[in-house]
Amino acid sequence: MDYRFSDRISSLKPSLIREILKNTSGSDVIPFSAGNPSPESFPVKALKEIADGIFNDDATTALQYGISEGYTPLRDALKERMKKKFNSGRDFDDLIIVSGGQQGIELACKVLCNEGDTVLCENPSFIGAENAFRSYNVNLRGVELENDGINIEKLENALKTEKNVKILYLIPTFQNPMGITTTLEKRKAIYELAKKYGVMIIEDNPYGDLRFEGEEVPTLKSLDTEGLVIYCGSFSKILSAGIRVGYVLAPSEVIQKMVVAKQVSDVHTNLFFQMAAYRFMTQYGMETHIDKIRKLYKHKSSLMINSLEKALAGRAAITHPQGGLFLWCTLPDNVKMLDFCKKASENKVAVVPGIAFCVSPDDYCNSIRLNYSTPSDEQIVKGCEILGKVLDSYY
Amino acid sequence: MDYRFSDRISSLKPSLIREILKNTSGSDVIPFSAGNPSPESFPVKALKEIADGIFNDDATTALQYGISEGYTPLRDALKERMKKKFNSGRDFDDLIIVSGGQQGIELACKVLCNEGDTVLCENPSFIGAENAFRSYNVNLRGVELENDGINIEKLENALKTEKNVKILYLIPTFQNPMGITTTLEKRKAIYELAKKYGVMIIEDNPYGDLRFEGEEVPTLKSLDTEGLVIYCGSFSKILSAGIRVGYVLAPSEVIQKMVVAKQVSDVHTNLFFQMAAYRFMTQYGMETHIDKIRKLYKHKSSLMINSLEKALAGRAAITHPQGGLFLWCTLPDNVKMLDFCKKASENKVAVVPGIAFCVSPDDYCNSIRLNYSTPSDEQIVKGCEILGKVLDSYY
Repeated sequence: MDYRFSDRISSLKPSLIREILKNTSGSDVIPFSAGNPSPESFPVKALKEIADGIFNDDATTALQYGISEGYTPLRDALKERMKKKFNSGRDFDDLIIVSGGQQGIELACKVLCNEGDTVLCENPSFIGAENAFRSYNVNLRGVELENDGINIEKLENALKTEKNVKILYLIPTFQNPMGITTTLEKRKAIYELAKKYGVMIIEDNPYGDLRFEGEEVPTLKSLDTEGLVIYCGSFSKILSAGIRVGYVLAPSEVIQKMVVAKQVSDVHTNLFFQMAAYRFMTQYGMETHIDKIRKLYKHKSSLMINSLEKALAGRAAITHPQGGLFLWCTLPDNVKMLDFCKKASENKVAVVPGIAFCVSPDDYCNSIRLNYSTPSDEQIVKGCEILGKVLDSYY
Repeated sequence: MDYRFSDRISSLKPSLIREILKNTSGSDVIPFSAGNPSPESFPVKALKEIADGIFNDDATTALQYGISEGYTPLRDALKERMKKKFNSGRDFDDLIIVSGGQQGIELACKVLCNEGDTVLCENPSFIGAENAFRSYNVNLRGVELENDGINIEKLENALKTEKNVKILYLIPTFQNPMGITTTLEKRKAIYELAKKYGVMIIEDNPYGDLRFEGEEVPTLKSLDTEGLVIYCGSFSKILSAGIRVGYVLAPSEVIQKMVVAKQVSDVHTNLFFQMAAYRFMTQYGMETHIDKIRKLYKHKSSLMINSLEKALAGRAAITHPQGGLFLWCTLPDNVKMLDFCKKASENKVAVVPGIAFCVSPDDYCNSIRLNYSTPSDEQIVKGCEILGKVLDSYY
C-alpha cells in the first residue's frame, strides 16, 4: 500500500533534537536536554494515600466515564485558586480540564484557526506548541524574543502585515527555551496590541508556580478585561507530568467550543488523576509542596549557573532565570552551535541546540538550552565541567 | 470580543441526544441511553492492589513524562494478545497506546485526511466517531447498514462516486448503535473493495471481547494482508472507561505519523494507568475478568430482551446482539420516534433516538438505541414496562 498522508501531517518534519540526541539516551549520559520535572518533586507518599482513598470511597466515579468539561470539584478549585493566586478569571470566563497543557494549546488552535490563518509566537519558542500549530497547517510566524519579552515593534508589524492573525502564543513567565520573563510593561503593551488587532492570546504558563527569585509579575490573564486571553495551566511541574492533567481558563464561548473538540479528541481526561489532583490541592497541602519544589529548583539553578560560570569563564552569555526549568547559553561567534552540541553529546552531555526552538530553520541562533531540573547535583557539576572542556577545544 | 471560530468546529452541531436527554440526568431516571460499562465490571480490588504496587516499586516511572508511543511493556503485551486472540497483526504492523479508542479514530483522521476528503461509514454509526471526522471538515458519507453488515453494493457505489475516499470507518462487531455483527463473508467482500479502491479501513472494536453468544467472527485486521486496516481497541469496556487507555494496531508507517500527531495532541497517555493496564493483563487474570463481564452482559441483555418482548408484545422489532452493550428497537410506523423518546423521557426512561446516529439529519430512522450495561436489573425490568406503556398510549 502506498500510503497518502494529510498535508498537515506531512509538513511536520522529524525533530532536529531527536536526531542530535539520538545517541544520548544511555544511563551514562548527563541529561541537560530534557524538560522533565525533577523526580524529587513527585509527592509519591501523598499520591499513594490519595489513590487508596479514592479506591476506598469513590472508585466507581473514578473508573466510569466522566464529562468532557472535567471533574467539577477540580474545576471549581482551580477557578478559585486562579482568582486568589493570580487574580485571573472574570465572570465571562470558564475552565476546562485537559490532558496536560499541550492539549490546551492544540484544542485552542483547532477551534480558532482555519488552515492558512496566522499564528504568531515568540522566536524561539516551545517546540511542542509550534508543532501543534503546524499540525493544523497554519502560517506560523516567529517574532524576536528579547531579554524582557517579545519585541513590541516587530509584533505590531507582524499583526499589521500577516494575513488573518488569529492567535498570539506566548510563554510570558520563565519562557521555554530562554528562561526569561516578560516585564509588566511589555505585557500591557502586548495586551493593547491584541485588543487593537482583535487577536486572541494563548498565555502558556506551565512554570508560573515555580518562581524562586524576584517579584511575581501579573499574568496576561489578570489584565484580560475584554476576554482575549486563553490561559493554559498544568499539574505537570507541580505534581506529576506522567498523569497528563492540565487546564484552560478562557472566555466561556471559547471553552464551550473546546469542550466539543475535547469530546471528539479523547472524551475526557483520566478521571482518577483529576480526582487525585483535586484531593492533593485541597487536602494534602499543595502550596507547601510547591514551596519545596521552588527551593529545590533555586538550589539546582544556582548550582548550574555557578558551575557554568566557572567552566565557561566569561566566554558564553547565560540567562539567569528567576524560576522555571531552563537557562539559555549563547556561545561565542567562533563556536558553531550544532558542532558544539555534537561534541557535547560525544562527551556524554546532552544539550539541545537553540535552532530546534526557532520557527524557521533559516533563523540565526548560536545558543543552547540547558535544563537543571532533571540532572542530579553531581551531574550538574560534572556536566558543566565537560561543557567547559568542549568549549576549551575551540581555543 | 466577537469570537471567530474555525470552520471545522462551527460545523459541529449541538448533539440532538443532549437536547432530548436534557431532563434525564436525575438519579430517578432509568438510563437506557448511556454507553457506559456496568459499574460491576470494574475490578476495584485488583486495581487498588496494582496502584499500591506501582507506588511501591515504580512510582518515578509512572509520574514522569513517558514516550508518545506508549509504555513499552504494555505495547508488547497487547501485540502478543492481538496475535494470539484475534490472529491480528503482521510484521509490517506496529501499536501505539492512545487515550481511549476515540483518540485512535481522531488521530487516524488527522494523519490521513485533508479537508474535503471523503470518509465512509455505516449508517447509522457511532456519534463520537462521526463528530471526530466532522471536526476535520471531511465529507462524511453513510452507507446503509443491514442486519449482516454494510450493504456491499452501495458501498462499492460510494467508493466509485465519492471524491478522494480515504477512510472506511466500521464497527464490524456488536455495532454501536445497532448491536449487529458483520458476517465473515461481508468482511471479506469489504476488504476486497478497500484493496480495489486503495482505501484505508478503520476497524473500531471496543466491544470485541464482549461476545456472550455465538461464534467468534475473524477481525478485518486478521484478513489484512496488504496493510490497509487501522484497528482501534480499548480498555474502556473490559477494565475502566475513566482511565482513558486504548490502542491502535496498524501498519508502522501509519503508526509513525500517529505518534507525531499524538505528541502534539497530549504528549502521551496517562502513564500510571498504562502501567496498571499492563499489570492487570499479565498478573491479575484479565481474561478471567473478561469472562465475568461476558456473563454479566449475557444476563443483562437476556433480561432486557425478555422484558421488552413482554412489554412491546410484538409491536416493535428488536435486534438480538451476541455481545456488546446495545440493542436496537424499531418502532411501528405509526409511532414517531422523536415523540416516543420525549414521552419515555417524561416517564423517566432515557432512550436515544436512532436519528442521532444517522449521518444526515434527513435520513429516515424510526428506531431507538437501548443500553443494558448501565442500568441495574431492577431498572431494566421497570424501564421496559414503562416503554411498553408509552407504546400502549399510541393505540
